[in-house]
Parts: sequence; structure tokens; C-alpha cells
Amino acid sequence: MNDNDKELLAKSLAALQIPKTHVTVGLSNLIASNKDVRSLLIHRRLPDSGWSDHEIQWFLYTVATLDTNLKTPISSKIMTTSSNSSSVRWCGVGEREGRVYSNLVAQRHFGLSHGVGRSGDITEPQPKAVGSSVLAKLTLLMVMDGVRRGSGLHAQTAAAHGILLPLCTGMSMALVLSSLRESGATSCSNTKERDVVLWSRIDQKSCFKAVTAAGLTCVVVPTARNGDCVVTDMDAMCAAIKQYKGRVLAVITTTSCFAPRVPDSVDEVAKLCQEFDVCHVVNNAYGLQCAVTCKRINRACVVGRVDAVVCSTDKNFLVPVGGAIVMSPSDTVIHNIGTMYAGRASASPMVDLFITLLSMGLSGYKKLLEQRQVMLTTFPVRLNQVAEKYGERMLACPSNSISFGITVDGLARPRRRDEDENDYLQAVEKDISRFGAMLFSRCVSGTRIVPRCVTNTIGGQEFLGFGSSCDDYPHAYMTAACAIGVGPDEIDEFLVRLDKTFKEFKKKQ
Amino acid sequence: MNDNDKELLAKSLAALQIPKTHVTVGLSNLIASNKDVRSLLIHRRLPDSGWSDHEIQWFLYTVATLDTNLKTPISSKIMTTSSNSSSVRWCGVGEREGRVYSNLVAQRHFGLSHGVGRSGDITEPQPKAVGSSVLAKLTLLMVMDGVRRGSGLHAQTAAAHGILLPLCTGMSMALVLSSLRESGATSCSNTKERDVVLWSRIDQKSCFKAVTAAGLTCVVVPTARNGDCVVTDMDAMCAAIKQYKGRVLAVITTTSCFAPRVPDSVDEVAKLCQEFDVCHVVNNAYGLQCAVTCKRINRACVVGRVDAVVCSTDKNFLVPVGGAIVMSPSDTVIHNIGTMYAGRASASPMVDLFITLLSMGLSGYKKLLEQRQVMLTTFPVRLNQVAEKYGERMLACPSNSISFGITVDGLARPRRRDEDENDYLQAVEKDISRFGAMLFSRCVSGTRIVPRCVTNTIGGQEFLGFGSSCDDYPHAYMTAACAIGVGPDEIDEFLVRLDKTFKEFKKKQ
Amino acid sequence: MNDNDKELLAKSLAALQIPKTHVTVGLSNLIASNKDVRSLLIHRRLPDSGWSDHEIQWFLYTVATLDTNLKTPISSKIMTTSSNSSSVRWCGVGEREGRVYSNLVAQRHFGLSHGVGRSGDITEPQPKAVGSSVLAKLTLLMVMDGVRRGSGLHAQTAAAHGILLPLCTGMSMALVLSSLRESGATSCSNTKERDVVLWSRIDQKSCFKAVTAAGLTCVVVPTARNGDCVVTDMDAMCAAIKQYKGRVLAVITTTSCFAPRVPDSVDEVAKLCQEFDVCHVVNNAYGLQCAVTCKRINRACVVGRVDAVVCSTDKNFLVPVGGAIVMSPSDTVIHNIGTMYAGRASASPMVDLFITLLSMGLSGYKKLLEQRQVMLTTFPVRLNQVAEKYGERMLACPSNSISFGITVDGLARPRRRDEDENDYLQAVEKDISRFGAMLFSRCVSGTRIVPRCVTNTIGGQEFLGFGSSCDDYPHAYMTAACAIGVGPDEIDEFLVRLDKTFKEFKKKQ
Amino acid sequence: MNDNDKELLAKSLAALQIPKTHVTVGLSNLIASNKDVRSLLIHRRLPDSGWSDHEIQWFLYTVATLDTNLKTPISSKIMTTSSNSSSVRWCGVGEREGRVYSNLVAQRHFGLSHGVGRSGDITEPQPKAVGSSVLAKLTLLMVMDGVRRGSGLHAQTAAAHGILLPLCTGMSMALVLSSLRESGATSCSNTKERDVVLWSRIDQKSCFKAVTAAGLTCVVVPTARNGDCVVTDMDAMCAAIKQYKGRVLAVITTTSCFAPRVPDSVDEVAKLCQEFDVCHVVNNAYGLQCAVTCKRINRACVVGRVDAVVCSTDKNFLVPVGGAIVMSPSDTVIHNIGTMYAGRASASPMVDLFITLLSMGLSGYKKLLEQRQVMLTTFPVRLNQVAEKYGERMLACPSNSISFGITVDGLARPRRRDEDENDYLQAVEKDISRFGAMLFSRCVSGTRIVPRCVTNTIGGQEFLGFGSSCDDYPHAYMTAACAIGVGPDEIDEFLVRLDKTFKEFKKKQ
Repeated sequence: MNDNDKELLAKSLAALQIPKTHVTVGLSNLIASNKDVRSLLIHRRLPDSGWSDHEIQWFLYTVATLDTNLKTPISSKIMTTSSNSSSVRWCGVGEREGRVYSNLVAQRHFGLSHGVGRSGDITEPQPKAVGSSVLAKLTLLMVMDGVRRGSGLHAQTAAAHGILLPLCTGMSMALVLSSLRESGATSCSNTKERDVVLWSRIDQKSCFKAVTAAGLTCVVVPTARNGDCVVTDMDAMCAAIKQYKGRVLAVITTTSCFAPRVPDSVDEVAKLCQEFDVCHVVNNAYGLQCAVTCKRINRACVVGRVDAVVCSTDKNFLVPVGGAIVMSPSDTVIHNIGTMYAGRASASPMVDLFITLLSMGLSGYKKLLEQRQVMLTTFPVRLNQVAEKYGERMLACPSNSISFGITVDGLARPRRRDEDENDYLQAVEKDISRFGAMLFSRCVSGTRIVPRCVTNTIGGQEFLGFGSSCDDYPHAYMTAACAIGVGPDEIDEFLVRLDKTFKEFKKKQ
Repeated sequence: MNDNDKELLAKSLAALQIPKTHVTVGLSNLIASNKDVRSLLIHRRLPDSGWSDHEIQWFLYTVATLDTNLKTPISSKIMTTSSNSSSVRWCGVGEREGRVYSNLVAQRHFGLSHGVGRSGDITEPQPKAVGSSVLAKLTLLMVMDGVRRGSGLHAQTAAAHGILLPLCTGMSMALVLSSLRESGATSCSNTKERDVVLWSRIDQKSCFKAVTAAGLTCVVVPTARNGDCVVTDMDAMCAAIKQYKGRVLAVITTTSCFAPRVPDSVDEVAKLCQEFDVCHVVNNAYGLQCAVTCKRINRACVVGRVDAVVCSTDKNFLVPVGGAIVMSPSDTVIHNIGTMYAGRASASPMVDLFITLLSMGLSGYKKLLEQRQVMLTTFPVRLNQVAEKYGERMLACPSNSISFGITVDGLARPRRRDEDENDYLQAVEKDISRFGAMLFSRCVSGTRIVPRCVTNTIGGQEFLGFGSSCDDYPHAYMTAACAIGVGPDEIDEFLVRLDKTFKEFKKKQ
Repeated sequence: MNDNDKELLAKSLAALQIPKTHVTVGLSNLIASNKDVRSLLIHRRLPDSGWSDHEIQWFLYTVATLDTNLKTPISSKIMTTSSNSSSVRWCGVGEREGRVYSNLVAQRHFGLSHGVGRSGDITEPQPKAVGSSVLAKLTLLMVMDGVRRGSGLHAQTAAAHGILLPLCTGMSMALVLSSLRESGATSCSNTKERDVVLWSRIDQKSCFKAVTAAGLTCVVVPTARNGDCVVTDMDAMCAAIKQYKGRVLAVITTTSCFAPRVPDSVDEVAKLCQEFDVCHVVNNAYGLQCAVTCKRINRACVVGRVDAVVCSTDKNFLVPVGGAIVMSPSDTVIHNIGTMYAGRASASPMVDLFITLLSMGLSGYKKLLEQRQVMLTTFPVRLNQVAEKYGERMLACPSNSISFGITVDGLARPRRRDEDENDYLQAVEKDISRFGAMLFSRCVSGTRIVPRCVTNTIGGQEFLGFGSSCDDYPHAYMTAACAIGVGPDEIDEFLVRLDKTFKEFKKKQ
Repeated sequence: MNDNDKELLAKSLAALQIPKTHVTVGLSNLIASNKDVRSLLIHRRLPDSGWSDHEIQWFLYTVATLDTNLKTPISSKIMTTSSNSSSVRWCGVGEREGRVYSNLVAQRHFGLSHGVGRSGDITEPQPKAVGSSVLAKLTLLMVMDGVRRGSGLHAQTAAAHGILLPLCTGMSMALVLSSLRESGATSCSNTKERDVVLWSRIDQKSCFKAVTAAGLTCVVVPTARNGDCVVTDMDAMCAAIKQYKGRVLAVITTTSCFAPRVPDSVDEVAKLCQEFDVCHVVNNAYGLQCAVTCKRINRACVVGRVDAVVCSTDKNFLVPVGGAIVMSPSDTVIHNIGTMYAGRASASPMVDLFITLLSMGLSGYKKLLEQRQVMLTTFPVRLNQVAEKYGERMLACPSNSISFGITVDGLARPRRRDEDENDYLQAVEKDISRFGAMLFSRCVSGTRIVPRCVTNTIGGQEFLGFGSSCDDYPHAYMTAACAIGVGPDEIDEFLVRLDKTFKEFKKKQ
């Protein structure tokens, strides 16, 4: 919108008999919108204030217009237009031309249909889809800015470079590992011989499976206990690195997890990785919401080696499931991940993130982070109060600020004199699980009940005490999270329902 | 979009690492869209080819941005933004600031909320709502263009000037009559004494009521019969004008109606009106789809007097109910209608028409008109075939090309010897009406069954033979329309179901 | 959703291998939604808590399905379906079948296209449009409930009966007056002779024009001044009633207006109307947000006569412009308004209100009212502070709680010695108006600047001192409203900008 | 909707004063919609006729209601609701609760936000997301039905079992290979030693990269030439299997490809794979649109071994990029793919497919397939005509019915006497490529220009004559596709523009 444009528009509106003074005011609105867009294009940062939905849609429609082959959905082609060949602007004679059959589908993607990336690299712009390419680039730049200025991962450390993947955290982890293996990210001569990944135990299936999907062998490094906390066992880690020497491609640590597991000592592991020249990948699935965790990762990048940090977009930015952001101090690592992705991908997770970031703005994102901080000042205390009412207590894991555990040992009935221990344990496990079901049926979602002594097998590997990330945690417990986006009224209600459920359970017992 | 703009955009995209060649192609798409918009703004005519939904939405969002006070819906105001006063671009301290509570509502109006018009004139631009004003003006210009180039009302005659009203045909008629009375459209010195409207009988309630709503007295001028047709009784009309001399404000004729009523002799009436210096308003509710009717109105404007032609937007342009277009050879008449409207009005009917016209383009509109013509070549013949199968026949009303009637006299059972005639007629009326209900329950909508000798009272006035627009039409009959938008498959199905219903009815009898 | 349904759904989901426990939880959600709908259908009241947008849309789609002829938009008919006649469920052979050309249009109306009402009565259900009819009825019931439980108009008084009109306040007023005239609402034998409406002066065009549009003569009854306030002149009113005895159809009073005009003494006028047996219509355009005003109207209904209360939907319920709610203690009055409307009407304003009311719930509506009350505790004080800073002061009109005025006499430069008084006044008027333009260019909308001694002509009638509703108000002044929906941040910003504008204006002077 | 429901609804509508006859008709519409849904739930097949957009949206909103935690988007939480804890139906205290920040995002997903799958298996239903789970299951069942009844892959052969992946073809291929390796799909004792994949050369990057991403080694098996066609070299394939004996995990063949490459002899390869007990994966990216190809795959499953057939959803069903359908004769193979996926995934590609399939119905899908067949009767002939006009000719590859090639040797200028051959070839390559750029700038997308003798390196492997899938194809050529969804007007325009471009190119030369 410049002087010529304004003149033309002003002239047109005058011809429509809109008074000049009105036009001036109207144009000032349009110019204000254009300014926002211009500012986004020039600074390529998360805007300080969020945009309105109106502005976002206007921009999306504009951006989509840049795409080639923005055609009318096939189901809308009326006979009247088909004879009217002058209306064919683009003829598509490829095997994939971004044609969309349904109106509803075209509408929900704002006309974008080409996905993102090319067969060679998921970050590569598509000639047919300039709009999608622009959107993908801007989304990445905005989320990196948000991570730096909002979450606190530094541009000098982990948030130096980044890539958005339309994959969940697990599959992203697989892709990262594959690319590290293929690109010889470690300095050893023959990385193909590096077929082992060391994994500081965290009882969650996706990550373990990711290692296998990448064609690598996962070696589980046991954790240690420190008071109530389940922590990184640095000695075991060191021993494992030495044991698999020459075969270790990478160590995986985890920084967001269910209590009583606490975030891994990423800095200590980072030092070890540097010393032994192996890669270090941090599974930071939903850790961006925690300033302390981000600081710890910053430090790890400074004192040792971190190759990649993998974060979920849905858990951190409140979009539907399906995307991940991978960050790294190294440009090369990020580049290699992009080229490892085989084919084009759905742009949908990026569209969601694009809209959400524009809608939040930096201030909105910060408010969400602050709101969680405010909730944290009372949640653990109040949770503990409910627990104590029923003879239980909170597990003391101060370094996990997202997930909180309370013991539920008292939910187990006493062992009958003549009862076989195994039978007893199984019966008790069932009982305790019922507590979770009761909460769920009262519309409480997200709690986890972990009885003692459950064994689970994943990919042929047996896990004792599954759920607590260590072989024999001395308590049955329940966890609940105080995660980004949770509202005070939800917390209030949760505590009320938890209380009621305890009462009812005890009564039945 | 000019050189400076293109340069800036090109630079920004380059900064996003989009290759130059891609950018060129993308920009060419954007420029093509801009060209369409520019062409619309410069020529202010119905585009020849329709626009895509994508383009229409993009334009709507752009236009709405011109409105002042385009605010985030109230229900979406999150606490985070309220403390952030820098985001308040407009402060509204009037009693009506276009605030919208619900997201869904804001969304369905593309952010437009100020309606159209001002208290002084419904066509007046609003300072706060440049976008809505632009939209209203463009819609009027496009529909007038479509009426001229598509329907065939001439710019030299009835389609010289026009106004869009967010009112149905009836209420528009009331407004037209009020404005004619107030503005002294007739040359007599004291129009306030002109309190009578002559109405060539047409059995439809809205128009009759419209006269009353305007504070005028409706005098029903009877029709005549000519073969099967119910036609204008010119002698009666002439006599009425003379009878109410000095009190007649206007004559209302109707050009779209149910068979066997045929369009009024608007040209003859027009001559009479000119001679006697009274206004002439044509109720052309759904007549724009009929070229013959439009020609007749053109002629009327040439040979005599026509003050206003009132047409429905939904029946002619396939939008939801709620709008009318009033046209006139006289700029003053149109202007006075605009100033008579008391207050601002819903922009929704205009938004619908705006979208629809852009979506159709002139070619799409013409195709719809042609498609109806094609259907007309067989519909009456086939309808007659079904009628004859059951001993009925088509009513010969060739000058009504939209509505078609077939006799259904045979549906009446013979009168029993001892039966009172009145009782018989009432019983038969019920029987025949049941035929319509049977069709409806077979999912046929829009047929009308008119038994003989029904009497109805509207506004205190009694109408004998109500439905057929004359006192004693000699047949019971059923009508069906071949209106714009009806598809060949619907017609096929209708004929099949009509046949079945006849068969079933006869069997039961 | 009953046992059979649940069983079928449960069986189907089981066949899809969804575990039974999940199904139970899912069904409980669906049942909760169904409960809300059921509750709405059974109690037909404004729900206490608002519904989510999801729930509202689901219900709208369900309701629209009840409409006959819910067809695929014409522009979406692909060749593939036309040969497939089995898909034709409804064949429409009427002249108006609710066909919609554009997808976008169909979408924004949720498939509803038949409008509301029938030619005989705007409240009559349409056979083809059960969904639209249900929606119209429910919207009316909900808004009446909201008015009673939220605004405080009583079911025993003004809010006994009501009707929704898809017309602005002005046109609704015209319709009310027409229907009062036609239905002989006054007890005199020949209401047709009642052609005069007395109008307690309020300088706003729509209402005055409405009287004319209804074919009636508007007699302006002057106001009186009481301190700063412009109030009802009961003596003048009484005199006028006597003067036009036998010709007075109705008196119009106004209860929401710009300061320094305050709400009319509706109770006193009501007594007078009862005494003299004339109708009394209250223009309560945006008065539902003010509890005091509603109380006053309640009292008027008790102590005297009120025939109708006309309120805007957009100004009171934050929907786009275009609807009104008319209420009356008398069922007959309301019924007659419905039958006076000539034809069917756009359902769009009702859809907006339906969505908005469901979204608000009673609690949301009350919150908005309370929020305004909170703002009222400081707004006048702060406005006065700004005024006093520049030697002006607030006009003391405590009975107008919506609009507030401050003098702006100081904006006028002193008269030059040799200057003609008229020239001076005109020059000063221009100067002062510039103050309003300055505010608007700073993105402040809604203020009104009223210089002294402006004359305006509406419909041939001259108004001295136009704007202040009295001939010679002794101040130039500016008004600003504290209306429903305004946010604290807007008020803050407004006061800042007002201050700046004063400063700048003074400096230039 | 059963008798009780109908009764309640009928009663409620009666209370709203909707006449009984109207209610009956309205209910019949609702019941018809319910029947469609019921039929879908009971038969779980692609409906014969497509659904309307209205019906689809209604069903989507209903399905989404089954999800737990269907919350109002965070940016819409108004202060008014937070104090109203009774409105909290679900409290979410997990680390991921499907919260969505933006309204626009919630809207485009119809409220669904939980994605599909669980960490253990992507096909596993989620307790929190019954709606998403139902949608995923139904989409799979419908697409399998469409593939069987529309495309012609048999339920007895390749289309016995299937899985939908929200991944492109390439990444799906990687996942299939990983799962074959991990699950020991071959009968050999130690599948971990099976690290080689034989790949019948096809010059497309994604598939080659997919092998690497899975941690396997890709061995390129050269193709052979047969006339103009590039075909499977069965001897080379046999030799390769023998050479890598014991290490070969799988052979990959391709059945949809650019001319002059023709579909691989999948039946012959299938026999070989059976004989040597190695897996056989068919890359059938966009082959579902070709009946001949589907037949060939059916046969391959009968005469030999096929483990998996990978197809793109966007290329075959006209949805935006991002999904794949993998089919197999073996339930186990499909199951293992599902469990290999590490984590939950975006549901967006499934939502697109769900909508599209419901919108098409079987008849719509078949119409699209037929329309392509019709176009095929003239496209090659007409393309050849243009080619011959400029001294070129069509490449004779009758077994590729999707992609067609014409020689463009004549676009190369003759070699200058003194010119180095390499320099010449490079210059000529550039020249010829320019032809493609010219077409693109004339808004023709999808053609591929393949000059002779281009070398490309992918993942360290060099490919001579890249583009033609063989080392030294004797022609430079251009390809164009006649793919599903292309319209006759596009083809017409393409041929016109191709002609013009040839003319212009020749002139410049």
C-alpha cells in the first residue's frame, strides 16, 4: 500500500460516493493492518501483541493466493464454468496439482493444499506453493523468537537453529537419530558402526520406539533414587558409554516427565557426551513452559554437548496434536534433519501454529507462562492438603515443576493373612487402578495412577516397576500436572473431585 | 500493488529464502487477484466470469478492514490483552459501536457489524463503516449491471436507477408507497389527499398488506378472464381511476404470478397512469428471470408511466430470503425511497447478494437463465402428459412462463344426490387439498392446489375464489413452477411423484 | 438419545473396536450436550451458563436439517450427481424454494435460507422451514427471558409479550404505529381519523421519519430544561393532547438518549395517555442495559398506559445492526404487529441473536451489565476531571446513566469586535466541530459535539438548536457514552486521547 | 432417533406452536439424515451417494462431541466464565489435555484436537478422544471400501488390510521398512542382519531417502530399455537378490511413475520375492487411479509375494498433501506398522479424507475415475499432434496410462564445430530447461523437462541420466500427466499453451 495505491483506492471510493473524510479513516485502518503485515515480513519475529482473527484470516487468504493452482474445489465446478476456458488461469498436468475435491476441505486449509517441503528437503520452498513456503518460514521464525524471548532458550545455545516437523515428538526423535547417524555427526570415521543409543530410563513408549524405528538399538540406562526423586544415574551412564564404546551414536536425556522422575542432569550428561564424543539429544517434549528447565538446557549447551532438543508444539503452544520443533546449537544438525525427511508433508500443523502464534503474540504467550507460575504458588500446597486429609503425602520432587505426585499407598487394603503375596499385589494393583477410573468417570482427565511392581514389555525389553522409571519405587502414587493453559477453575474443581473420590473410595473399602 | 510494493514483497520473500523464480510466479497470482479487484473497483460492473470463493473471502476481509471499530468479539477477550492498552486502536464511546459478542457471529459477517445506511438515508455511507458502505455500493452497481446485461431491463427504462433494500418485497412496496406519497411524486398540489392505491387483483397477501402498512387504502380492481387466463381488466381499471379521481396515489400491477393469473398488461396500465397522472408501481417479485416480462416492462416505461419496479433478491438471485431491489426510470423516486427508510439496516442481505454475484459473474447468471429456458422447452409438455393420463389438462396460459397450471377437477368426487351443495363444495375442497398434502409428504414442495370457491378475508376485505385472483374460476387446479435454479433431475422426480400421487389418490377414491 | 439409541451407538462403536470404557465416557459427553439441548427445548429459557461455540454450531446444523429443501448450493452441483436422481430428496417446484447459489452464503447461514414468517404474519411458522421457525421461536423466548431476568423489565408489565423484528428501531416504530392505527388499539370508534402522533422532542431522525413512513403526522412536543437537564415538558404534552383531541393516535416517549436530554417521564406520560385514551409507545432503543430505566418503564405500565416498548437488538445485545425487539403488556398489540408485517423476512438478525444469547447465557449477559455498572462508578468522575483541566465541566444529568456530557464552550474563540454575530456563530460552530474530527482522526469514535444554535430541517420541519433536543441549550457540549460492552482499556485510552486533543486544540487556538 | 425421541421433539415443537404437520415434515428430514449416519455406522462402507456439506459438518460436530475435554479455546475465555465453576465439565490435569488457544484453530478442526493413536500404536483408540478414534476408524473403512469397489484392488489380495498414516508416501515407506525389519517379517532367524533393500531404479528422491531413514542400505537395481520404455530389469534384479543373499530385507517396486519409465513388473518381482523369501513393498503412490495397475498388483499378490502397497492419499483422493494408505494381504504386517509409529499423530489428514470420501460417495469417486478414462481417449493423440507439428513425437509407453512423454530433442541447437562436447551438453541442458520455465511462466504446472545426460547425487550415490531412471536415455523429453481430477478445459488450455511455447521457443532460436 503506497501512494499510488492509496490514490487509486481513494479515487475508486470517491467514485462510489464515499465521502473523502470517511475514506481517510477507512484507509488508516487498512494501513494499520498492512503495517502489521509489513512489520511481520520485515522483522520476521513474533509480534508483541497478538493479531485479531480477522487480521489473521485476511493474511492467510493473501498468502494462499501466492500458491499456484489455487483452484476451485472440484465438487464446486458447475457446468457453467467448464465451457468458459478463459477462466483457466493455471493448467496442471503434473501427477499432483494440489487439487482439492471438497469445499469444506479447501476452506479449512484456507486454500493451501501443497503441503510443505520437497522430496529433497522438508524446508525447501516449493515452486508451486510460494504461499505455503512463506507460511512455513514465518512460522519457524516466529516460534524460534517465541522460544527465545518467551521460554528462555538462548539464541547462543540450544535455540540457535531450529526446524519444524509435522511429526509428533517420537517420530521426530527417530528422524533426528537417523540424520545424526547418516550425517556422521560424531567425529568418528565410520558412524554406521554407531548403532547404539543410550537412554536414561523414562517410562514412556514413544521415545524407546523411536530408536527402533530409526534402525538403532536402545540401551536402557537405569536411573537412581534420591529421596522421593528418580534422577539420572550418572555412574550408570558413564559405565554404559564406556561399555558400548565406539558403538554409541547418542545419549538421550529427558527434561519433561511425570513425577517422581525429575528432569535429567542434562548438563552433566552433556559434559560426558563431549568427553566421549557422542551425540546428545534432549527430549524436552513439554519443557518449554518451564523456565528452570530451559536454563538447564542453556547451561548444558555451554558446558558440554547438546546436538538437538526436541519439543512438542501441541504441548507447549496449545495447538492440536501433530507437530514438533527441533532446535540445535548447530546449523548442520538442523539442515541434515531437513534433508532426511523423505517427501513433502502436511502443512496443517504449521498452519495451526502460525495462527496460534499470531493470535497470542509474545505478550499472550508470556501471559500463559506467567499464569502457570501463579498457579504453581498454590497448587502443590493444596494438593498436599487433600493428600494429607487421607493419610497420604506429596512426593518431594521440587525440581519437577510440571508434574506432581502424591502417595496413594493407603488405597491398598491390608494383605490377608493367608493370601499369596503375588495374588495380593495383583489384587491391590487392580484396586488402585480403579481409583483412576473413578476420577475419569468424574470427568477428571490426565491423572496417572502408578501402583507398585508393575512389569511391562516394550519392543522385547522388560521394564520392572513400569511407570515410575525405576525398578522398585517404594510407593504407589498418583500424578497430576500443572501445565500451560490449565485454568484456576479447573484446578479448583480437580481438587474438589479428588477429595470426593478419596472419600468415596475409602467408604467403599 | 505497484512497483514499490512488489519490490518490498520480493525483498521480504528473498529474506525468507524463497527463490526469486518462485516469488515471481507467486506474485503473478497475487497480481491476478489484485487485477480482478482493481477491475471491479474501476468498472464497478458484474465481472464477466465469477470469482472463486477464495478470492471473494479475501476481498471481504479486506473490505471489512476499512471499517472502524473492527474489534475482537467480546467473548474472546482474554485477560492477557486487557492490561495491554497499546492494543486498543479504536476507543468507542458511542451508544452503538459495532461491538459483537460472539465469535461465530463476527465470523459469519466477516467482521462487518455496522449495517448499512444512516438515520437520514439508507444509502448514505457511514463514517464508521467505510467497508460496509463500499460493499453496499458495489452490490447495487453489480446487481443493476446484472439486471441490465442479464435479465434485460434497460438502463434507458426501468433499470435506470436502483436501490437495494434489506426488506422483503412486501415491506419494500410499503416503503415505496410511503415515499411516493410523502415526496409528492404526482404533480397534484396536495399529495396528502392521495390516500388510495388501485390494485389489479392478485391473490397474495403481502402486497395488499403493504398498502395498509403505508397508511393507505387498497382498492381491489377485479381481473377478467380470457380463455383459461386471468388477465388485467383494463375497463375496470379505467373505471376505478375515474371513480377515485384525485385520491389515487398509485396503481399496482403484478408481473410475476401463479397461473392461471398472467402478468398484468403493464404497458396499457402505464399509458393510463400517464394519462391520469397517477403513480405506477410494478410488483415484479420474481420476474427478472423472464425475458418476456422484462421486455414488457421496458415497453411500459416507454409508452407510459412506471414509477418503480420492485423485485425480490432471493427469488431472482438465489440468496436467502430478505432483500429487494427497487428500480425506477427516475433518480428522484429512488432517492426518496432511500431517505424514507427510518434508520440503519442489516447488511446481511447485501453481503449475501455481493458474494453471490461475484461468485456467479455475468456468465454464471446467464447460464442459470438459459438453463431455465432449456427446461421450459419440455416442462409444460411433460406436465400436460401426466395431466392427460388422469383426464386432466394443462391450463393454456402461454404468457405466464414461470408458473403452470393443470386442472384437478377430476379429484372431486361426484355430488351425492341428497347432498347440500355447500356441504359438497366444502367436502370437495378438503379432498382436493389432501392431494397437495400427499405431494408434500412425498417431498414435493411448491405446488399449490386451488379448489373452486374458496373465500378468504384479508384486512377486512373478502376475496371470493381466493387463490385464482378472480371470483369464480371454473376449475380446481394445481400449479407448479419452472423457476430459476430448478434442476432437470428435480423436474424429472417431480413428474414421477406427481404421477404416483395421482394414481394413489384415484385408487383411494 | 435414549436407551435404544445408546445401545445402537455403543454397538457401532464396539464394531469399530473402540473399548467399552472409552465409549461410556464419549457417550457421557454427547449426553451432556443433548441435555443442554433438551433443557433448552423443555424450559425454553435463556440457559444459565453459555454454550460453547461447538455446541451452538452442532445445534444450528441440527435445527437447519429440519428445513425442507436443504439443498446443496447450486454452484457446487457437480455433473456426477445430476445423473444420480436417487439423491434428489426434495423436488421444489415453487417460485421460491430456498435455493442458494453460493457455498459461502449457504455456509454463513448454516443452511437456513427460508427466512422467517409467512405473508400473513411474520411470527407464523413456515411449513417448508421448520428449523427456521423453531429458531425464531426459541430466540424470542430466550430474549424475553433475558430481558426479564437480566434487564429487569417484568413479565407482569412491559415484558409480558414480545416480538422480534428483523428491522431497525425506526422501521419497527413505523410498523408498531401502523398496526396500532389499523387495529384500532384505542377505544375510539374510528381510528382512521387518528392521524397524529405526539413526539416528545428528541433530536434523532429515525423516529421522526418512522411516523411519516407509517403515513401519520408527527407533532413535536417541546421539551423543558431543568438545570442542565433537558426533560419532558408535561405541560406542553398535556396541552398538545388536548389540542389534537380525537386525532391523536399515540404519544412517543424516549428512554435512551444523548445527554443532556434525559429519559422521558414515561410514568407521567403513561398516566396522561390512560386518561386521554391514546396509545403510548416507548422508544427504548438502548435502554435495556440500564436498570433504572427498566424500573421506570415497569412503573409506567402499572400506573398508566404503555402499548409498546421498542428496543434495538444490536445496541443491547451486541449483535450486528438490524433487529429490534418490541414488547408490550398486551398480547393483542404484539399479535397485530406480527400480522402487519407484509411478507417474510431475513432470519439473519435472529440467527445472530440466537447464537449470541446461547453463547452468553444469563450469567454472561448479567456480567456485561455488571461490568457497565462498575465502569459507571468512575467514568463520570474521570471525565469531569479532564473537563475541569480545560476550564469545562460535566453537565449534571444524573438520570441519564448512559450518555454523559461536558461543556466545550471554551473551544469557541471570543467574538471579534467588528464581527457580525451570525458570522461569528457559524465560524465558531465550525471550530467546535473540528474538535470532533480531531478526536475521530485519533481513533475515538462515538463522541458527539453539539455547538449552540444549529438549525436542521427534517421532513419539512425545522429544529432549532438541533442536537440538544431543545431550542436554545445554553452550552456547546460534547457527549460520550458508557455503554454495554465498553472495556476499561477503551475508557482509559479515551480519556488520554481526549486530554491530548484538548491540549492540542487549545495550543492551535 | 427413536419413538421416545421423536415424541419429545414433537412435544417441544408443539410447545413452540409449530403445527404438527410441519413438525412431521421437519422430522422426516432429520430422520433421513440420521438414516445416513446410521447406515454409515452399521455398514461402515463408503456411501453410494455423497453427503452434502451440511450433513458432513453436522456429523463432524456430533463426533467431536464424543471427545473428552472439548473445551472453549483459551483465547475465548472471558472473565465472566472463570468465576462460574459450575461450567467446568472436565478438569484436565495431564501434561496434554487437547487445549487449543485459538478459535480459528479449534474451528478448522471441528473441535478435534487430540490427534490419532497412542504412544503404543497409531491405530489404538484414545480414551480421551472417542470422537477422533471413531473418525479414524471410519475413514479407514471407507477408504478401503473405495479402493476395493472403486479402484479395483481386491479384498482377497492387496486390499485385505490397511492402515492410514498421516505421513507422506516416503516417510510411510520408511515406517513400513522399519516395521518389516523389526517384526522379522521374513522367515530368516535374524532379521537384524537384513540391512539391504533392493530398489528397482526410479528417479525420485523420497523413496531412496526413506530406505536410509529406516537405517537400511539402498541398493539400486538398474532398469532396462524396451523400445521407448524404461522397464524392470528382471535379470539384474535376480542377480542382486543373489548377490546380497541373506542381507536383503525387501525389494521395492514402483507402479506409478513418469514416462518413459513404466510400472515395474510387480508380478514377476513378486514371484522372485516369494522364491527367495524376501519382502516386497510396492510404491503405488498415485496408482489407485489406474485400473490396469491395480489389476497387476492383484495378480502379483496371487502369483507371488507382496507385503505392502503404499499409496498417497492426496494424489489419489484429492486432499491436501500429507497422508498415505498402506495396504497388505497380511493383517500382521499392517498391525506391525501401526505399532512401529512412535507416538500420536495429527488427525488432520484423516479429517480431510473423511470429509472428502463422504462428499464424494462411491459414485462421485467412480465418476472421477471415469472422467480420467474419457480424457485418456484423446489426450495422447492430441499431445502427439502438437509434438509432430514441431518435429517431435510421443514416446511409445502404452503401459503407463498416467504420464506421457514427447521428445524435445529438437529444442537443442546443433553443436558448434569448435565446441567442447561437455560444454555443449551443459549449454543444451540449460536451453532445454528454459523450455520448462517458459511453460511455467505461462501458468502451466506439472510438466517435467528431462535433458539428456544429467548426473545427480542422492545420499552419496550418483545417478547418471537422472530423471529418466536409466543411465543413458536416448532422448531429451517432456512429460505431462493425465491425472485424476484434471478437467477437459485444463487439457485444452495446456495444449494451446504448449503449442504457443514451442512456436516462441523456435522463433527465439
